[in-house]
Order: sequence, then C-alpha cells, then structure tokens
Amino acid sequence: MTAAPKTITAAILVIGDEILSGRTKDQNIGFIADYLTGVGIDLKEVRIVPDVEEEIVAAVNVLRHRYTYLFTTGGIGPTHDDITADSVAKAVGVSIGVDQRAVDLLLTRLKKEDLNEARLRMCRIPEGADLILNPISAAPGFKIGNVMVMAGVPRIMQAMLASVVETLETGAKMLSESVEAGLPEGAYAKGLEETDKKYPDVSIGSYPHFNTSGGGFNNQIVLRSKNPDSLAAAKADVEAMLETLKKERGEA
Amino acid sequence: MTAAPKTITAAILVIGDEILSGRTKDQNIGFIADYLTGVGIDLKEVRIVPDVEEEIVAAVNVLRHRYTYLFTTGGIGPTHDDITADSVAKAVGVSIGVDQRAVDLLLTRLKKEDLNEARLRMCRIPEGADLILNPISAAPGFKIGNVMVMAGVPRIMQAMLASVVETLETGAKMLSESVEAGLPEGAYAKGLEETDKKYPDVSIGSYPHFNTSGGGFNNQIVLRSKNPDSLAAAKADVEAMLETLKKERGEA
Repeated sequence: MTAAPKTITAAILVIGDEILSGRTKDQNIGFIADYLTGVGIDLKEVRIVPDVEEEIVAAVNVLRHRYTYLFTTGGIGPTHDDITADSVAKAVGVSIGVDQRAVDLLLTRLKKEDLNEARLRMCRIPEGADLILNPISAAPGFKIGNVMVMAGVPRIMQAMLASVVETLETGAKMLSESVEAGLPEGAYAKGLEETDKKYPDVSIGSYPHFNTSGGGFNNQIVLRSKNPDSLAAAKADVEAMLETLKKERGEA
Repeated sequence: MTAAPKTITAAILVIGDEILSGRTKDQNIGFIADYLTGVGIDLKEVRIVPDVEEEIVAAVNVLRHRYTYLFTTGGIGPTHDDITADSVAKAVGVSIGVDQRAVDLLLTRLKKEDLNEARLRMCRIPEGADLILNPISAAPGFKIGNVMVMAGVPRIMQAMLASVVETLETGAKMLSESVEAGLPEGAYAKGLEETDKKYPDVSIGSYPHFNTSGGGFNNQIVLRSKNPDSLAAAKADVEAMLETLKKERGEA
C-alpha cells in the first residue's frame, strides 16, 4: 500500500452582473477547470454572483474556508461596479488602500497626469496581499491568503492564472481514460455501476453527446483516477463488459 | 408614480463532475441566462456542483428558498452517477419512485424488453412532480414546487427550458442599451458613477473587451433598467458625458 495521493481542492467565484444577464458568456470557468485538472488541483465548486458586496463577501467566506484555494474572476477594473477588491478585503477582514506597487505598475503604461481617481481604484489592494502581475494591461490581480483575485477578461485572466498557479501547492494529477461506448447508455449502465463500485479510487462517468452533424447520440465513458494501476484495470473491465454486451446484442 | 415592476428571480444549479474537471464545457448557463432575461426573469446566482448527493441537496435547498425559481441541469440519465432526481426529491422532502407517465414516454421510443433497470432509472420522478417533456430522446425532466430539473445535453435542455418557462410567472422585462465608449475606462469611470447614482433604477456597467483581431481594448457601456424613461434619460446623460470628455481630450 502506498499513501493516498495528496488532494488539493479549489473553487471558482465568477463575479459580474454581465454573466448573469447573459450579455457576456463566461469563458473562464472551462479554462480554469482544464488548467487546474492539468496541474493536480481538484475543482470542487463554482459560483457566479452579481456585483453586490454582500453576495461577494458571503461567497468568498464560504468558499475560502471550504477549499484549499479560491480563484475569483471579474470586478477589478476602474468603474463603480468593480467592487471585488474591496469585497474580498472585507471578507478576509483586512484593510484596503491604494498600493504603491500597483501604482508603479500602472505608471509603466500611463502618464502620471492620467492616473486619476478611477484608475487609482485599480490600485486598491488588500493589506498583506501579493500582487499577481498582468502582462497585458498592467493593472494587477492579487493573492491574499488562499484567495486569488483575477481579471475577468479571458486573455488577462489566463496570464494571471499561469503566473499565480506556479506559486501554489499542487497535488497528484488526475489521470483519465475515455472509452467510446458504441451502445446506448441504458444498455451498459448496470455493468458500469458494478465497475464503479469495484474500484473505489476510480470515478466513472458516462456522457451522452448529440452529434449535430449527423449520427445522433454517441456515448463516451470517462474513467478518472489518481492511481494509474486502478485506472488501467477499470478501463479493461469496462472494455470487456462492452464487448460482452455487443456480442449478446448481436446474437439476440 | 407607477408601481415598481414585479421582480421574478431565478438561480441555476449545474450538476456534474465533467464540468468541474473541464472535460465538458458548459453551454447551458449562457443560454439560460439569455432566455430568462428575454422573458423577464432575473438570474441572480449560478452554482456548479459535483455528482455528490449531499452537495446537490444542500445547493437545491439554499437556492430554491432564496429565489422564485431554480433550474437544474445534468444528472438525469440512466447511469449510476445520475443522482439528480433522487437528490432533488430528498431536498424537497418527498418520496420518489418509477413514474408510469415517464415509463409510457420511454415506451414510445423503446421496446418493452429494452426497458431495463438502468432505463427505469430515468423514470424515477419525485412524488407530485409535473413532467417536462423531452422531444429529443423521450426521457423527461420534471418540475417539483419551484424547482425545474432538466437534462444536461444542451439540445435537450433547450427544448425543456422553452416548454417549462411557458408555465412560469414572468416579470417586467429588463431593457438594455449599449454605448460604445471610445475612451479608456479610467477616463469616464467617475462620470459613469455619477450617472449610476443619479438613476437608482438603472444599473450601469462598463465592459472592456479585448479585440483579438486587432484594435486592442474596446469598452462598452451597458445600461439596464425595467423603466424605459429612466433608461433613455441615463443613456442620454452617458452620451453627453462621453462627448464632453472627448472634447476635453481633443483640446488638451
């Protein structure tokens, strides 16, 4: 027996009225999910809340206590509805003010006379936070405790994510295998459940996909585990189970 | 003075490990957000949780009590990880069993001998629920109390959504206007905040957008209100403010 692989968990909090109204389609959740899976951090929950302080504070406090890390996106620009930094400071219980490090970063792109009140809003960083650099438009995100505050614009968020994840602890990577079922879900669901029970360290899902370019529904069986031996054994069982079912159906 | 427009609120609960792992990219949140905005239901919160009963039960209970309606997607197929129907029944506190109406629907597509244990799982409907018809693959969703349980496959979800929303109460439609800023956010943020404060029934946001095909950042100002008069007045104020700023910058 080897020790159980270390588990590092995370949540995402997407902040913004524009996502809830449908005006902006979120492009960050799927990207962050892929990225975290790739580095061995298990994404466990996502929430989307409006630009309302009490909603942000409440969600930050639930999620930061519940998971190893919390990643937020959105609400760190210069306008009145950008209230994420102040809300996170309130949730964490620290003060917030204009941070000279952030001012210096903005001054690499702006003339001093253009650093008005609104732009200084983007320099409001909670006391004790580390900055997350923004190579695209200078205004930084920040990391305070286990909360990573990032921009909502996907290109900026992606750069911030790559830079901050380097500083985080990561766990054993989740490995996955896919098997094309070639049968209706209802035909193999029972066998799949038996395999799922046989391998407690493998999670098995079945995903119907409608092929809009013809062919109707296809089903893909996805097996996920941090243990490569269990994963290989479970995959072999699933393949054998499907083969048996196909033979039975052929003979029926 | 006219009475304040009626507000009908909603939340979405997306259920599925595959969304959190990044394997499947959600296509339902943005669609539902647009749809609800279009019919006058205000989407207030979204959560994504894994296929874990206690997580689903907890989220359903928070969200169904907090908002007028709760829409769930995912987890109503025939496999062992499809636990949404049972979890919702548990959350609402009603019993669940195989529902003859659902069986009859499946039998329009399947031979009786193919209606095995797994497929009967798709016929498990909480006591007292109304079915939501599925014109694509027959297996229905359902509505119990203010909770609408829908499939995760986008094409099926969309058909279910259209059919169930017809049965719901809707509120005053949110109207919106957009103004291309043509200026950096930091230049107009203060003026925008003043306009936002002047019109309490108009919500104003500023949305930077990075144009990947050239042109760098563009900013769009979006005004939203259920009151057409306030909306028009606020838009005129924003346009005048931008024009003044542009003149000032031209003269500087």
